[in-house]
Amino acid sequence: MSFNTFGHLFRFTTWGESHGPALGATVDGCPPGVPLDEVMIQQWLDKRRPGQNKNTTQRREPDAVEILSGVYEGRTTGTPIQLMIRNVDQRSKDYGDIAQTFRPGHADITYHQKYGLRDPRGGGRSSARETAARVAAGGVARAVLGQIAPQVQVKGYMVQMGAKTIDRSRFDWDAIDQNDFWCPDPAVAAEWEDYLDFLRRKDHNSVGAIIEVVARGVPAGIGAPIYAKLDSDLAAAMMTINAVKGVEIGEGMAAAALTGRDNADEIFMGANGPEYSSNHAGGILGGISTGQDVVVRFAVKPTSSILSPRASIRIDGTPTEVVTQGRHDPCVGIRAVPVGEAMMACVILDHILLDRGQTGGQRGRIGPA
Amino acid sequence: MSFNTFGHLFRFTTWGESHGPALGATVDGCPPGVPLDEVMIQQWLDKRRPGQNKNTTQRREPDAVEILSGVYEGRTTGTPIQLMIRNVDQRSKDYGDIAQTFRPGHADITYHQKYGLRDPRGGGRSSARETAARVAAGGVARAVLGQIAPQVQVKGYMVQMGAKTIDRSRFDWDAIDQNDFWCPDPAVAAEWEDYLDFLRRKDHNSVGAIIEVVARGVPAGIGAPIYAKLDSDLAAAMMTINAVKGVEIGEGMAAAALTGRDNADEIFMGANGPEYSSNHAGGILGGISTGQDVVVRFAVKPTSSILSPRASIRIDGTPTEVVTQGRHDPCVGIRAVPVGEAMMACVILDHILLDRGQTGGQRGRIGPA
Amino acid sequence: MSFNTFGHLFRFTTWGESHGPALGATVDGCPPGVPLDEVMIQQWLDKRRPGQNKNTTQRREPDAVEILSGVYEGRTTGTPIQLMIRNVDQRSKDYGDIAQTFRPGHADITYHQKYGLRDPRGGGRSSARETAARVAAGGVARAVLGQIAPQVQVKGYMVQMGAKTIDRSRFDWDAIDQNDFWCPDPAVAAEWEDYLDFLRRKDHNSVGAIIEVVARGVPAGIGAPIYAKLDSDLAAAMMTINAVKGVEIGEGMAAAALTGRDNADEIFMGANGPEYSSNHAGGILGGISTGQDVVVRFAVKPTSSILSPRASIRIDGTPTEVVTQGRHDPCVGIRAVPVGEAMMACVILDHILLDRGQTGGQRGRIGPA
Amino acid sequence: MSFNTFGHLFRFTTWGESHGPALGATVDGCPPGVPLDEVMIQQWLDKRRPGQNKNTTQRREPDAVEILSGVYEGRTTGTPIQLMIRNVDQRSKDYGDIAQTFRPGHADITYHQKYGLRDPRGGGRSSARETAARVAAGGVARAVLGQIAPQVQVKGYMVQMGAKTIDRSRFDWDAIDQNDFWCPDPAVAAEWEDYLDFLRRKDHNSVGAIIEVVARGVPAGIGAPIYAKLDSDLAAAMMTINAVKGVEIGEGMAAAALTGRDNADEIFMGANGPEYSSNHAGGILGGISTGQDVVVRFAVKPTSSILSPRASIRIDGTPTEVVTQGRHDPCVGIRAVPVGEAMMACVILDHILLDRGQTGGQRGRIGPA
Repeated sequence: MSFNTFGHLFRFTTWGESHGPALGATVDGCPPGVPLDEVMIQQWLDKRRPGQNKNTTQRREPDAVEILSGVYEGRTTGTPIQLMIRNVDQRSKDYGDIAQTFRPGHADITYHQKYGLRDPRGGGRSSARETAARVAAGGVARAVLGQIAPQVQVKGYMVQMGAKTIDRSRFDWDAIDQNDFWCPDPAVAAEWEDYLDFLRRKDHNSVGAIIEVVARGVPAGIGAPIYAKLDSDLAAAMMTINAVKGVEIGEGMAAAALTGRDNADEIFMGANGPEYSSNHAGGILGGISTGQDVVVRFAVKPTSSILSPRASIRIDGTPTEVVTQGRHDPCVGIRAVPVGEAMMACVILDHILLDRGQTGGQRGRIGPA
Repeated sequence: MSFNTFGHLFRFTTWGESHGPALGATVDGCPPGVPLDEVMIQQWLDKRRPGQNKNTTQRREPDAVEILSGVYEGRTTGTPIQLMIRNVDQRSKDYGDIAQTFRPGHADITYHQKYGLRDPRGGGRSSARETAARVAAGGVARAVLGQIAPQVQVKGYMVQMGAKTIDRSRFDWDAIDQNDFWCPDPAVAAEWEDYLDFLRRKDHNSVGAIIEVVARGVPAGIGAPIYAKLDSDLAAAMMTINAVKGVEIGEGMAAAALTGRDNADEIFMGANGPEYSSNHAGGILGGISTGQDVVVRFAVKPTSSILSPRASIRIDGTPTEVVTQGRHDPCVGIRAVPVGEAMMACVILDHILLDRGQTGGQRGRIGPA
Repeated sequence: MSFNTFGHLFRFTTWGESHGPALGATVDGCPPGVPLDEVMIQQWLDKRRPGQNKNTTQRREPDAVEILSGVYEGRTTGTPIQLMIRNVDQRSKDYGDIAQTFRPGHADITYHQKYGLRDPRGGGRSSARETAARVAAGGVARAVLGQIAPQVQVKGYMVQMGAKTIDRSRFDWDAIDQNDFWCPDPAVAAEWEDYLDFLRRKDHNSVGAIIEVVARGVPAGIGAPIYAKLDSDLAAAMMTINAVKGVEIGEGMAAAALTGRDNADEIFMGANGPEYSSNHAGGILGGISTGQDVVVRFAVKPTSSILSPRASIRIDGTPTEVVTQGRHDPCVGIRAVPVGEAMMACVILDHILLDRGQTGGQRGRIGPA
Repeated sequence: MSFNTFGHLFRFTTWGESHGPALGATVDGCPPGVPLDEVMIQQWLDKRRPGQNKNTTQRREPDAVEILSGVYEGRTTGTPIQLMIRNVDQRSKDYGDIAQTFRPGHADITYHQKYGLRDPRGGGRSSARETAARVAAGGVARAVLGQIAPQVQVKGYMVQMGAKTIDRSRFDWDAIDQNDFWCPDPAVAAEWEDYLDFLRRKDHNSVGAIIEVVARGVPAGIGAPIYAKLDSDLAAAMMTINAVKGVEIGEGMAAAALTGRDNADEIFMGANGPEYSSNHAGGILGGISTGQDVVVRFAVKPTSSILSPRASIRIDGTPTEVVTQGRHDPCVGIRAVPVGEAMMACVILDHILLDRGQTGGQRGRIGPA
């Protein structure tokens, strides 16, 4: 993970700014012979795409991906895959008035301090538009998983918006794709809708969220000690997403309040290998997958781009008040769902490749010899 | 971050098992000319050392570090520094009876599944003894920071044990070093002592904890988008520590419940640059430091090595009950404090080096021209 | 250096195939604030561009570079720079008949063996067209060097074509840009012209060459032991260029025939630091620059794409004869000159950044205190 | 390849100085379950060990390797393997008088210029003693190859000393281990012996050499475009060895003088796959192995540590004459043979692991369906 590159063997480098001509991802290390076309990637971009309903920014971007390299006659060739997305709906004038001002909670000020200059148009490189590129890379990862580990399923959903959490007793996998929030609890989704409406129209405010992403079907033995642990790579992956401030595996922060007796996932022998009484560990022990669901959660802070005035300064040090007039998501967490899924898919695939590189896919037997 | 190596420019590779002859860290990329000797590193190892009081494992390890290379006449030469710590108090017989058994919550089973074999003595490579090596590497990082960024201070402390959290209104920096728990709230430290006593002696149980680590004096402009963000490297760093299940920056998971208005750290011009009304961001915006305190928290799960029986299986698949008789920490979070400090020191130094590599240390001005 | 990425801190990833829609380089780690536009890069691409005279392939590619990211208002922002070059003059029919055939000396067969498929159009990823992308990346490196180390000059030229070498007593820097071969010896350049004419028109053959690239003005102290030596990075850099089979630093292979007394570059104190009686070392000792000219040579094999028939096989194993009818360079070494320059520029810049990262640019003094 | 680390998946970091307490290699990414003990590694160290005959330095080092981690009950565990070699015969007084002086042709001056200080005892980090550590790492690579690719054989030998080259018509594989020079031509070996005797005893001089290393049995399809080419990794590997100034693959620099017709390795269908009429390519096309012998040569310059006086300067800039009195190899190329073998073994293994990571070991078929 280096500057703008993520991954060990399956790695991608994203590039591009919010209001430049295009952005994209250069995907390297992809296995050869995998069926891939733009339609397969576009489905995931469409899920993240802005402007689809009133709860997300009204910027209209088709986010149409073009594959510029690495695919021949519908199959990956093992060489770099360039995924380009042109920016279409840049309205730089929305932002022009704040080029000399730092928005509280934005990377405006730190980019300026570090680099001495920044592209102020739409947040430039620090814009969440970058996440489109990784969703595209995640689409490639999903295509490869479909070929070499088809039992792996990756699914993300929102479990909390503001202080309102889902009721896990109402958890419904089928509901996730049926509301604007990727919410598995239809009842709370209705509440969220009202709440967001209030925030956007009356309160001129925004709100944070918690996303959970699950990878099901990950074989036991994926990951590696000590500094390429599956969980540390997942933590890094999710923490690179804009506005993320916390990452949890399994019990997460709540593990602190548990005792060893309560937290132990007891082990039993099942028909197809070990089974567990619970999954406090989130599917990872010692940095290596157990074969249970890999469960990650991350918190997305509320966007700082709000219509309510906040105190700030200009580059020349003079005080000012910032009111962000542009088109912004009142809850950026919503669009973080497909982004979290993409990162999960990339990490799981990368570790499957790493593992077969080092171990050749050999596995220790459990059960009678 | 690759298998057993951590860091970009200042990087270290740890090696060694719990009950092998020795363990250590190979530190590469260290700036030259920095005063360094074993005493400077030993102070941090002593802080982590087991057997110092009744609240930690009674294994007696001097954890004496030897510098085998990279230092000449008391100064670093810019070449690799080998830090070796010999294991002294290995009692393999404590563990012999569970070589064929998987302890619930341990990496025993995943190492076996991945590699087909494992060193069962004391957890082998998955033992928390590995953290001694990174504390030693952190000692080198601290020595370098003392030379090139002497204003940087790194301090860790425990803010929660089980369900018992500190009262921030009683926060006392000076108290941290005066109790067995690195606790800034002496009143809660007394409660923790009783609680641990109960867990160890009566309940035969263990408990989790939350550690907070603060880096003060970090200059603005350290870090880098997108996949080498300061916060994602910190998240990876902390998540690589044994038993850690969650990492937070600034508000962390609680950011989900805030609105944009409440979460905004408003900016004012101070005498020495920008100042902020609050630090919800934990000192990082867009992956780059703001100059405020860099604040990280991580949750440590309760150790699975307890005297209470838990259901499990043997390698041959037969059921068994596991009771861990060895010498174990009832709250491993205590000894995670200096480990978290070490990782913070390494990440901050690494990013200071990375930044001066890329930008040459130039900084954007804020204030009148 | 990983799959399709080159460099440590200043790193680029190239992508694209000979006959795909486009190719390019994703440049990461570029210092911020450096003046950069397409014209500055285009000048180097124009030097490499095919079809400029009868001695190179008659494929007509404008090789017009587009900067898609990382530059704002004419200056680099420190974020990834995407350099895209569209392919214009693809004549896939030239190659269609050999999609089932392996050309002797080409990567056709190894790509097929490794990946199970390949893009046969123009050699796909293995085509020397990839070098356009690195020439573009080298253009960025040159722009940065112009800003942070303006005394560094990089110059390449051809010193041998077939068995015909230049006469060093006639070496003329000004002649290099005045013939089609970047040849510093005008007399031998005239001979080469006749020889190439014969090879192309009568002999239906091709020939190898040796290129020398010099970096002048490189400060002493750049480079690093042991596995990031300046010379090993240069060797890797040049060996990644298509058709290169040998790399030399300073005396190169001829060092084997020298004695220690003859090979010693004796040291004297000059007005501005150490001076040397000779430069057998090629400006590098122990992997670190001495301040003398850094001198690299590499051999380019003759292209295998010739009109003379060579025995080969088809994918189905049946024998065939291959005659390559396409537009090919009779001496690919000519166009390797700007490519070698680009790689030199990238390596030197990368090591300048690495050095200031690790050492902060401190230097040991030589001379009276 | 980063500072002191070499390799992608199978990677090692060397550490230690010539006259420090110890040196070694930290090997990471080793496949698990491979039989390994110290005897298996020691055999290769013994081959490189100094003081074995009058033609190498008379320093007496047992070079006894200790495995400190990563091996349990005689098999690798997949975790880092620490290989430590204690220095025994340090005679620092040999070098004390030149601590203030720069030896012509040594890294003394560049280390001083870069780092501001250096360990002058025996050359410190720049000493060829570092190569013992990589020979140990190469021993691990050989053990792994023996397990997962037992058909691979790696063999090095000297083909030139000074101006005296072997006669390839007398090439005898069995002779290589039967003389002090790893020379396949017994007749020239006898000449070399007399010549070295003259250089050491009468001429007080040293001489260069060329080493060739061959890997036989490497499967087709190992390697990767563009910047992790098998040949560029080999070039980097060999160029990191002390005193190496040139690297060649197959025809090497001589490829420049060939025509395309002569250089083409024509392809025929054999019983077990493609066969070639010749091996000008050195077993590599497009960075990927063909299945033929992988052939690398490198030139080792004459050691600068000679009894003949050479002009130089002291740190304070005053002129001096340097005569190196210590125990030195008159032809360091001799001991470079096992070092080149070790690097070849590491590169081949690393690429076998990389390949099975990316492609899963799938191979394109050649022959009837």
